[in-house]
Amino acid sequence: MKKVTVNITLKPSVLDPQGKAIQESLNSLGYKEIQEARVGKSIELQVEEGPDLEARIKEMCDKLLANPVIEDYRYTVEEAVRS
Amino acid sequence: MKKVTVNITLKPSVLDPQGKAIQESLNSLGYKEIQEARVGKSIELQVEEGPDLEARIKEMCDKLLANPVIEDYRYTVEEAVRS
Repeated sequence: MKKVTVNITLKPSVLDPQGKAIQESLNSLGYKEIQEARVGKSIELQVEEGPDLEARIKEMCDKLLANPVIEDYRYTVEEAVRS
Repeated sequence: MKKVTVNITLKPSVLDPQGKAIQESLNSLGYKEIQEARVGKSIELQVEEGPDLEARIKEMCDKLLANPVIEDYRYTVEEAVRS
């Protein structure tokens, strides 16, 4: 079993109102050192091992998990440790 | 300037219907090897350097970014590279 963590972020050119709201909230709570905040998604998948794991992960990201028009993604694959 | 990436996940005991929906969608698209999916948030902060950076990050997470009752968080701090 592998644990795949997919990190999806908005492309730098895309406005992120949710991140802007977080930045302003932090500033108004006294954390003036925050210059920018951007929000993304992270998806943790437990994947049974098989052939072409990486190619299939990329396919899943392009088809379902991310919107390649406005989002970038990166992923890491590690051995799953079941707790 | 530092780049702080905060990763927020639901605690393992908390149900994640969004993750369940992703898992079922991937399964029905033919990706039967996906056993589980869980969705979290990642927040990238651009932070001006100052004293007690880590303590302040923890405070921000507990006060605003995460809900410590149902969520766990971890963060990494790195040198910001402006593109």
